[in-house]
Amino acid sequence: SFSRGVKTVTMIPGDGIGPEISAAVMKIFEAAKAPITWEERNVTAIKGPGGRWMIPPDAKESMDQSKIGLKGPLKTPIAAGHPSMNLLLRKTFDLYANVRPCVSIEGYKTPYTDVNLVTIRENTEGEYSGIEHMIVDGVVQSIKLITENASRRIAEYAFEYARNNKRTSVTAVHKANIMRMSDGLFLRKCREVAENYKDIKFTEMYLDTVCLNMVQDPTQFDVLVMPNLYGDILSDLCAGLIGGLGVTPSGNIGANGVAIFESVHGTAPDIAGMDLANPTALLLSAVMMLHHMGLHDHADKIQTACFDTIRDKKVLTKDLGGSAKCSEFTAEICRRVQDLD
Amino acid sequence: SFSRGVKTVTMIPGDGIGPEISAAVMKIFEAAKAPITWEERNVTAIKGPGGRWMIPPDAKESMDQSKIGLKGPLKTPIAAGHPSMNLLLRKTFDLYANVRPCVSIEGYKTPYTDVNLVTIRENTEGEYSGIEHMIVDGVVQSIKLITENASRRIAEYAFEYARNNKRTSVTAVHKANIMRMSDGLFLRKCREVAENYKDIKFTEMYLDTVCLNMVQDPTQFDVLVMPNLYGDILSDLCAGLIGGLGVTPSGNIGANGVAIFESVHGTAPDIAGMDLANPTALLLSAVMMLHHMGLHDHADKIQTACFDTIRDKKVLTKDLGGSAKCSEFTAEICRRVQDLD
Ligand SMILES: CC(C)[C@H](C(=O)O)[C@@H](O)C(=O)O
Ligand SMILES: CC(C)[C@H](C(=O)O)[C@@H](O)C(=O)O
Repeated sequence: SFSRGVKTVTMIPGDGIGPEISAAVMKIFEAAKAPITWEERNVTAIKGPGGRWMIPPDAKESMDQSKIGLKGPLKTPIAAGHPSMNLLLRKTFDLYANVRPCVSIEGYKTPYTDVNLVTIRENTEGEYSGIEHMIVDGVVQSIKLITENASRRIAEYAFEYARNNKRTSVTAVHKANIMRMSDGLFLRKCREVAENYKDIKFTEMYLDTVCLNMVQDPTQFDVLVMPNLYGDILSDLCAGLIGGLGVTPSGNIGANGVAIFESVHGTAPDIAGMDLANPTALLLSAVMMLHHMGLHDHADKIQTACFDTIRDKKVLTKDLGGSAKCSEFTAEICRRVQDLD
Repeated sequence: SFSRGVKTVTMIPGDGIGPEISAAVMKIFEAAKAPITWEERNVTAIKGPGGRWMIPPDAKESMDQSKIGLKGPLKTPIAAGHPSMNLLLRKTFDLYANVRPCVSIEGYKTPYTDVNLVTIRENTEGEYSGIEHMIVDGVVQSIKLITENASRRIAEYAFEYARNNKRTSVTAVHKANIMRMSDGLFLRKCREVAENYKDIKFTEMYLDTVCLNMVQDPTQFDVLVMPNLYGDILSDLCAGLIGGLGVTPSGNIGANGVAIFESVHGTAPDIAGMDLANPTALLLSAVMMLHHMGLHDHADKIQTACFDTIRDKKVLTKDLGGSAKCSEFTAEICRRVQDLD
């Protein structure tokens, strides 16, 4: 099943509703004749040599080959010492940039309209260093690690992203008034990189100020770049503005084209296997993936079909305010994709 | 000018619009016959013995005597090494709890209605430890310090606050999935303290989840308690929900009744001295202060007069959507305060 120009993508269906929404995405890709073949892999960590947690070799190999992954939700492992699968994947493939476009969806009502911004989160260091100590009984320290290289790399990514996506401004989000050295270093690198992108407006803003301004008027923001924890917070906040994690796509980008796109909502075990899940977040993540792969026409077609379906309000899953099953919602998008041909 | 039951409060008018809005508050207190005399002090830091920055002795003495301060905005000092005045005040008087009630104001439209929550922020440690190092060139670490004592103290404050203010739930906000030891310690103390407050519902939530839920439906929250940086972020976010820092009061609470109440907006140098400022945030902070001092009747009267003025929309400052001067807005509140007698 190889043909010229067909690319392989590693599909990580995930847990809970993961298999259903992955199947939905694959159906829609088929309808859109996206030139992709899927290699399904399970990534649940196993204990490797020396007791180190690692993702299974066949999943690692698939990703090493394909370079591109699409991932459904993974359940938080309960085994003691078992790492967060999300963190392990970011680390394994050095996915240093988490990118989340937050764009208002016509027809899906929230308190905000016209949100159109992108959060770009440094994904490898900062507060997520994992280095912690108990100094004396009752006194604990956690270490936030900021490096020049990772800061420059994420700043460069943000400005490149802005330029390639016809965006006009980048805001560096920080608390350098408090963490003068660490956030100060991050900010300095952003300023330096900004010098090379005179076509993009650069601004700096305190994280608290961003949060306040964001809930008052999100339309003032365009591309935002920030250290790890601030990105964790702001990306979820922004997802909330447009309707939550059920409709927000996400991509984790590494060097040399390696990337994993994923829905960031939970596994929803209560409705798993009942054909009730909403595949939108995973589908829109897959649309990001198509853009990443240069398959812009397929991306546009699928996105249009998805947004049209939501705007039309006739065939919606329960969480979107309708009563359709996942399979019906999926079929409606497939129908519209085919109509667009 | 001493009479039985009259209490002294240290007034720190602050910079920019500070003097105007302080004068407004004092006028309204007079109209309300609040049994308070003001001791005005300037707190701008000076260099003490050994080059240590400290607040001027007469300001320190006034606060040590009165125990209660009301503070306008302070400009950020530009002298190299000059500390943030806010941080210095918190430290000088060990004001360990920052309390911000965020309540929707009738007649002042925002995307949200019925917000009624309180953020309680640990104010002394965490990410604000000020301990940072450069490990090697290009690698910086900042230390987040969490102690058992400070965590227990703020948790106890939050539950006491909930009980005393007829609130029904406390949510501990954390990232113990990432900072397992530090946020883990904070969370453990919250859980332990919760055991002693069976009348208050206790829940735990990740900071990112709180942010997402907050912008989707803030009415689900009641009292929230959290480490320093998370409080910095969430308190500003929540202020944004109800109309911004111009209408949001704040209190910094220490041991043995010591407290400083403050507006947390800026000094607005562009309109300083022009009789255009909005004194609401400082006035509502002064209302919190009256409650803290047990002067509940005066507090209620002033708050009612303020909210009635805003709801009525006839005499509003520019930032509130009107065209009244600060003095006119103040006079209107005074008139209503007197009518309530
Ligand atoms: C699951 C968790 C480790 C993760 C994080 O904190 O980064 C999540 O919130 C995310 O944003 O992907
Ligand atoms: C001025 C600054 C030091 C301060 C902080 O970060 O705590 C401010 O944002 C606040 O919330 O009082």
